[in-house]
Amino acid sequence: MPTYTPPLRDMQFVMHEVLNVADEYKALPAHAEVDVDTINAVLEEGGKFAAEVAFPLNISGDTEGCKLDKTTHEVKTPTGFKDAYAKYVEGGWPALSCDPEYGGQGLPFVVNQCFYEMLNSANQAWTMYPGLSHGAYECLHAHGTDEQKKLYLPKLTSGEWTGTMCLTEPHCGTDLGMLRTKAEPQADGTYKLTGQKIFISAGEHDMAANIVHLVLARLPDAPPGSKGISLFIVPKFHVKADGSVGERNPIYCGGLEHKMGIHGNATCQMILDGAVGTLVGQPHKGLAAMFVMMNAARLGVGNQSLGLTEVAYQNALAYAKDRLQMRSLSGTKAKDKPADPIIVHPDVRKMLLTAKAYAEGGRALACYCALLLDKELNHPDEKVRKDSAELLALLTPIVKAFITDNGWQATMMCQQVFGGHGFIKEWGMEQFVRDARINMIYEGTNTIQSLDLLGRKILGNNGATLKKFGKLVGQLVEEEGVNEKMAEFINPVAMLADQMTKFTTEIGFKGMQNPDEVGAAAVDYLRVAGHLVFGYFFARMAQVALRQIAAGSTDPFYQAKLQTARFYFAKLFPEVQTLMRTARSGSKVLMDTELALA
Amino acid sequence: MPTYTPPLRDMQFVMHEVLNVADEYKALPAHAEVDVDTINAVLEEGGKFAAEVAFPLNISGDTEGCKLDKTTHEVKTPTGFKDAYAKYVEGGWPALSCDPEYGGQGLPFVVNQCFYEMLNSANQAWTMYPGLSHGAYECLHAHGTDEQKKLYLPKLTSGEWTGTMCLTEPHCGTDLGMLRTKAEPQADGTYKLTGQKIFISAGEHDMAANIVHLVLARLPDAPPGSKGISLFIVPKFHVKADGSVGERNPIYCGGLEHKMGIHGNATCQMILDGAVGTLVGQPHKGLAAMFVMMNAARLGVGNQSLGLTEVAYQNALAYAKDRLQMRSLSGTKAKDKPADPIIVHPDVRKMLLTAKAYAEGGRALACYCALLLDKELNHPDEKVRKDSAELLALLTPIVKAFITDNGWQATMMCQQVFGGHGFIKEWGMEQFVRDARINMIYEGTNTIQSLDLLGRKILGNNGATLKKFGKLVGQLVEEEGVNEKMAEFINPVAMLADQMTKFTTEIGFKGMQNPDEVGAAAVDYLRVAGHLVFGYFFARMAQVALRQIAAGSTDPFYQAKLQTARFYFAKLFPEVQTLMRTARSGSKVLMDTELALA
Repeated sequence: MPTYTPPLRDMQFVMHEVLNVADEYKALPAHAEVDVDTINAVLEEGGKFAAEVAFPLNISGDTEGCKLDKTTHEVKTPTGFKDAYAKYVEGGWPALSCDPEYGGQGLPFVVNQCFYEMLNSANQAWTMYPGLSHGAYECLHAHGTDEQKKLYLPKLTSGEWTGTMCLTEPHCGTDLGMLRTKAEPQADGTYKLTGQKIFISAGEHDMAANIVHLVLARLPDAPPGSKGISLFIVPKFHVKADGSVGERNPIYCGGLEHKMGIHGNATCQMILDGAVGTLVGQPHKGLAAMFVMMNAARLGVGNQSLGLTEVAYQNALAYAKDRLQMRSLSGTKAKDKPADPIIVHPDVRKMLLTAKAYAEGGRALACYCALLLDKELNHPDEKVRKDSAELLALLTPIVKAFITDNGWQATMMCQQVFGGHGFIKEWGMEQFVRDARINMIYEGTNTIQSLDLLGRKILGNNGATLKKFGKLVGQLVEEEGVNEKMAEFINPVAMLADQMTKFTTEIGFKGMQNPDEVGAAAVDYLRVAGHLVFGYFFARMAQVALRQIAAGSTDPFYQAKLQTARFYFAKLFPEVQTLMRTARSGSKVLMDTELALA
Repeated sequence: MPTYTPPLRDMQFVMHEVLNVADEYKALPAHAEVDVDTINAVLEEGGKFAAEVAFPLNISGDTEGCKLDKTTHEVKTPTGFKDAYAKYVEGGWPALSCDPEYGGQGLPFVVNQCFYEMLNSANQAWTMYPGLSHGAYECLHAHGTDEQKKLYLPKLTSGEWTGTMCLTEPHCGTDLGMLRTKAEPQADGTYKLTGQKIFISAGEHDMAANIVHLVLARLPDAPPGSKGISLFIVPKFHVKADGSVGERNPIYCGGLEHKMGIHGNATCQMILDGAVGTLVGQPHKGLAAMFVMMNAARLGVGNQSLGLTEVAYQNALAYAKDRLQMRSLSGTKAKDKPADPIIVHPDVRKMLLTAKAYAEGGRALACYCALLLDKELNHPDEKVRKDSAELLALLTPIVKAFITDNGWQATMMCQQVFGGHGFIKEWGMEQFVRDARINMIYEGTNTIQSLDLLGRKILGNNGATLKKFGKLVGQLVEEEGVNEKMAEFINPVAMLADQMTKFTTEIGFKGMQNPDEVGAAAVDYLRVAGHLVFGYFFARMAQVALRQIAAGSTDPFYQAKLQTARFYFAKLFPEVQTLMRTARSGSKVLMDTELALA
């Protein structure tokens, strides 16, 4: 059976030593009082919840899965899920980063980010129930009417109710412009929605008193395509004016999907049979409103794979130290044992270090993004808000795609460390791989993320935002360029940052003549950008470690950070070479393949 | 639901146009009569069996799995598996490449290779039941006594009985030297075996009248380690002198594993409770005898992933042509439809072409290896037999590890083409990924394969065998070096072949000073070698295609081959750049990580 220990020290390192979040928060009126001790204390408790309540239900939830009663349309979640959710609500966890106006605790998103990393390590399938609520909360917080906010936000904040996002239909996933669900205006200002949605995570369950569905649909006068989509709140039970729950609304689960992973989460086909909803935001502008939720969800998905990478790493490390098999190639290491622990073998270490580096790089990036979100929402200076929003928009597809692709690699390698035992369910490793698989697909496939990054976020403004990130790299070079000890960490990043400019311009130029060039290069480009960002954070982490060591610290933690950074630059970062080459090889070899793909 | 069409034309291309197997067989007395028409006719029938009998049971077998009756120790395979096996036996398929002396059809291994590729595409889990018999057959054919051959080979040839290999124990997988199962000599010359084996594929089932277990165990006077292991035949039912089945032998299934994939195959814990067996080969030399079976199994495992790559590709291609979503970046392609089929998107094509290239490269390599095996066993010239054996030994770990790593990538990408639907069981794509996962683990993990390749097969004889493969590349360069049309296919391979010499020498030199350098480089090295081999075969396939086109052929098949080869060299082959760099970055960043991996 797998184990999980919350990586609190690593989180504290990123938050307090690398990003200095408490200092940053002094400039944010909403969080000026938040100090290091508070953050650490909250996360210590949060870690206990994750490890002690959510984690023990991970394998059992996968084995048992969800069950739909086809008569009542009610879904029974796996044994223990409902109780765990009750404890989650009781502990006040849903309110962590919510607005105090609606009962929230008003803590910064960085805290929520770390808390959710731990929940995802513990139990991705369970975590999706409260996780989706959070996106619904943010969407309504940004776009709801005062009345909608008053009715829904307190219950989403307390966790009494959960939320969903209902976008996909059988014939349209990525291409939401094709969606068909209809919303008919009623005399009382509400709408009656009719249609079918699929792949609705946490669409129906037994954990909360009500479920707040955010549904995309078309008004009768909607223009075709994505400009004719509106957003509606459609609660499972009607909500009375006093906030109490009324009659059942005809939005129900018509079927549960049988999936490769996340078995503990109910992935529902939802039938809307004249379900009553209210409009969120402007008619036909639903997609823009939903994007608040989608962006939150994309960061959340990256965080899912970060969590899986960490827990898979912890278990593979423990196994590699424990499992005795063969002798080290360079001579017996454990003379008193019948064989050496497999951690002596270079390739076993490579697999472990790959997962470790991906977890640490991902954590730094994800925490940085959460800090950007805090600044976007709460910084008094408009320019800082705008810059933070822009940088966050740039980094969001990288968080989503790079961390989830890495998570797939990492969980697979951690499984591989177990040899044949990795294939057996009881060890828990194969579940991490199966759960990690969905993260590359949902909330926009990783190909879609790469097009968002290269096409919209980078070429869309002629590389201006990328230059802003480049400035951060430049700043680090300026600070540490003469520090010989930093050279091994800074040189590769600085060189890549230089190459990126030309690389981006080249693709942009080719893309103007033929847009398929952008589509052909995008996936490789995103991985290069991912390494630029990871490389930057590994250099910053090394900077902190070197400073601590120079200041006399003998804490092995800092030497460990340098070892991981060295591994990263030697074994993982160099893939940018091939990626830039394959990206440059263009679209022709893909598109001139009519006969090969006949 | 997925579909499968046997890729007969592609197989014929490799066998008859690239490898000219029928010409090669003219030099082999055992196969001198085998002609193109016979091979094609057999494979056409074999394809029907795969597509019509084995394939329809693939998803149902996965869903249903195997069931153990704990009282009788009998295993019930999924519905339909037993009937399909009966048809397989009835059709004479087990005998395809078996020795006519024992009732075999005596066809070359190339035919069996292609037949098994199709079976693996159709149903890997089912195919493992007859597949393991084949390894047992080969092992006994090479090392059994005349009496053992007479008793067992006819029944394995007819398929009345199946075989297994019983190696792994709970505490030892890779490190067979640690195994503990005991064999006590009896007065009648037999042995009583006691111990526990795990991960025994097809270890117990309801498909055959008897199961022939090949079991590794220790004699009482065995020296410790791998030099004290002997090999035994331990049948499920005793075999009487007349070949009929007698009493139950106490070797039974104590439990079935719950696995990530290949649910239709019974992965058994086997208890030997004084089970009676007979010795195969010399005492304490069991590992060498078992290696005949292991080498066959390693080629077989590569073939499993080749099959999965092909079937995943076929289904992803069909879906990509059918699924309408978004418009092409370079302008609407299907004006009459609400969206373009997703095959218009460059990255969708990249995923499809990756799978296609891996399937075609893998098929060429696997058929070539089967031809080498035929020559090793049947060529009248001893030098040819020896050279073929050596080259086959070099290529075996590449077939096992490179094709299975590629198969993991390819099945994942084909699943990705389906978007969210790829995660849903009913589409069948996620099963291909789950089934493909085990192929990187069993019969020696891919790390073990890489050590076998670099440490034993290459550095072990100072690169002499690698040079033999290099000569094949040199020959092709000589033939086509002045042909401008071949330059794009030949230049990258020729350049890599040149670089390999220095690259290998460098690692060998470092490895003499520190063996961990070999362990650190091996996995990257194997992938570089894999691309050298694939590159060579893509160049040869392009050569054939160009000659056909030059000779006036208008068959689009040949243009398609050129398109796939161009894609391969532009998008897949270039990873050798990064791999050579990371391999060269050495072991220090892996080994000096005591604190990071604390």
